Amino acid sequence: MKYADQIKKLGTETAFAVSAQARAWGAKGHKVYPFHLGDINLATPENIVEATLKGIRDGKTGYCPSEGILPLREALAIDVGTRRGVSYGPDNVSIQPGGKPTIGKFIAAVMNPGDEILYPNPGYPIYESQIEYQGGCAVSYSYIQTDTGFDIDIDRLKASITEKTVAIIYNNYQNPISAESSVKEMEAVAALAIKYDLWVLADDAYFEMIYEGEARSIVSIPGMQERTVILYTFSKKYAMTGWRVGGAIGPEKIIKIISKLNVNAESCTTHFIQAAMAEAITGDPSGAKNILDTLRERRDATVAGLNTIDGINIPTPRSTFYLFPNVSEIMKRKGFDNIGQLQIGALENSNVSFCTREHFGRPLLEETEFFIRFAYSGITVEDINEGMKKLKEYFEAS
Amino acid sequence: MKYADQIKKLGTETAFAVSAQARAWGAKGHKVYPFHLGDINLATPENIVEATLKGIRDGKTGYCPSEGILPLREALAIDVGTRRGVSYGPDNVSIQPGGKPTIGKFIAAVMNPGDEILYPNPGYPIYESQIEYQGGCAVSYSYIQTDTGFDIDIDRLKASITEKTVAIIYNNYQNPISAESSVKEMEAVAALAIKYDLWVLADDAYFEMIYEGEARSIVSIPGMQERTVILYTFSKKYAMTGWRVGGAIGPEKIIKIISKLNVNAESCTTHFIQAAMAEAITGDPSGAKNILDTLRERRDATVAGLNTIDGINIPTPRSTFYLFPNVSEIMKRKGFDNIGQLQIGALENSNVSFCTREHFGRPLLEETEFFIRFAYSGITVEDINEGMKKLKEYFEAS
Repeated sequence: MKYADQIKKLGTETAFAVSAQARAWGAKGHKVYPFHLGDINLATPENIVEATLKGIRDGKTGYCPSEGILPLREALAIDVGTRRGVSYGPDNVSIQPGGKPTIGKFIAAVMNPGDEILYPNPGYPIYESQIEYQGGCAVSYSYIQTDTGFDIDIDRLKASITEKTVAIIYNNYQNPISAESSVKEMEAVAALAIKYDLWVLADDAYFEMIYEGEARSIVSIPGMQERTVILYTFSKKYAMTGWRVGGAIGPEKIIKIISKLNVNAESCTTHFIQAAMAEAITGDPSGAKNILDTLRERRDATVAGLNTIDGINIPTPRSTFYLFPNVSEIMKRKGFDNIGQLQIGALENSNVSFCTREHFGRPLLEETEFFIRFAYSGITVEDINEGMKKLKEYFEAS
Repeated sequence: MKYADQIKKLGTETAFAVSAQARAWGAKGHKVYPFHLGDINLATPENIVEATLKGIRDGKTGYCPSEGILPLREALAIDVGTRRGVSYGPDNVSIQPGGKPTIGKFIAAVMNPGDEILYPNPGYPIYESQIEYQGGCAVSYSYIQTDTGFDIDIDRLKASITEKTVAIIYNNYQNPISAESSVKEMEAVAALAIKYDLWVLADDAYFEMIYEGEARSIVSIPGMQERTVILYTFSKKYAMTGWRVGGAIGPEKIIKIISKLNVNAESCTTHFIQAAMAEAITGDPSGAKNILDTLRERRDATVAGLNTIDGINIPTPRSTFYLFPNVSEIMKRKGFDNIGQLQIGALENSNVSFCTREHFGRPLLEETEFFIRFAYSGITVEDINEGMKKLKEYFEAS
């Protein structure tokens, strides 16, 4: 008996190792300040819980269509379209057990072995893993730090397109760096996709986690809707990461393929949860608003705390629940040359746990600066303030 | 923009077309007798519903480990092991969003492109689809009708093994034909797997849907546990097909690979549903017993009804919720040469809806007999009796 060779190409989320370290440190009696978790420690809104129970009582416990139930596909088509200024119908929607399934199924639908897909680095590690595992060539594009955040290195992105390129994965409101495209940058990405006739996976996981103003979507740029699949998830907006419900939204033909992959992969997404989400989309929005308000307070406390530390200077991003400070000066002060030293040092000296740039893709050869990632979605403001004081002490000590 | 070539190899469940026909016929005002559905129209036991709500209230709404929560893996390891006379621990269990995901992930873990996997035909259509889609060669094995049911054609199975064969998919208590292996047959399958050093996927979806006596598992035969992955599902036992929770159970190394596929495919299975299942396994078993009692009554009514029809003679299978009568005499009486004629004829003349042999794999060239499949899981005894009377009238008319 043997194992499939291709399994060797399968990646993982190395951030789980940080969770294990934090758990082990906590088990020794330390109070850990958990900034490593991209999860939300808030309750799912009560109206969704009620609708879920109602769905079960109404007998929505049997199979439902692989593409999702019609009321949810209709509601999501209208909601997603309206927020992006485009028009979708139910046949543009394939419900998924979470946001992540859309990544693998999109790649399966558009990529042949040997094809190239462009993906962000630093970025969500599953992009690279799924491209390579499915036999493609994962080609990364990168970001340039600015005074206000991060810009996509458009020249590099453009130079990376070859005749083998079939798609760009574009994660505006980005994990881990919370980058947000300017209108100009988004138009530049769209122009490249159109010029080279590429598919775009718009990972919109954080599209509704915007603390001020409106979100913008690449799908609203003329020529983009017909080449874009949106990764939609309910996970962040309603604090329901563990419920596993989301969707792929895009042109009918590719959505039909994705739904056929559903038939083969998992039959359907939990029936009564779909019924609950159909109600949630059109129901009382106050639960989602409260979640966003709480996260905004946490963002402000974390940014303020980080900026009291000598050597850290971070702008306030308008979206996601991540912060990605440059800690090169801290590394220099401490005489570290490996970011893992800072991560472990912070845990053991200040009880503060975070991920680093290295958990979000292989660093490029030319990278000389050091970055760490704070997630503020799983920690209270009180603990943020406590943790930041301890971290300041550790980071400022030489 | 193009689509992946491999998508052309992706199959589907053609039985969905029968559901669509039945729905369309019903929409014209006819009362349809639904024997086509492999779904269960019974409520999920109340203790599971209560435990689900408790899980949500306890905040089990965030991410959980990709391999599943420890209490469920522990409980399932004991339960599955005990019922099969073998010993499993939590590291032998990877929780899945349903039974079906284990099929694709097992194949991904053991098969290289060009490898061959043996699968039952007639059988669940996703086996063939996933083998071919993932670049393998799907080689079918078949059954021989006997007085008491169906036997695997062991000679044919043996003759189909080549040096490229890596696995046998073995669905004892079989969908669609409700075949059950004798001790001798199960030992013959095991002997082949051991002799040729093959993996076995034991699709145990109906292992606990046994109306009389005990179930037997191939994993209990010496030499088999180390080469067998069990497909486990809660779907049938607790009437929760739409909840999407099951598991892959097998040797630690392959289970670790399957859990790594979980990280990439869907992160995790719904957290609070896992918590509920951990309670269900060790909790009040009366819900599952009531479901089985109801299905037994339906089985008996359907078998009795079918056997009143001139030209049908079917034994009573001890498991699953399917019946697979030979209708060759009816076909002859009606002058039909295509089983689809009988299916549509029955729907339009007697309002009875069922699937046929052709929905469960491509018929072999040497097949000369005609079979149809009745599922009695989604129809009451009253409607079974009504429907059978009408069907008898139609089937007996020439």
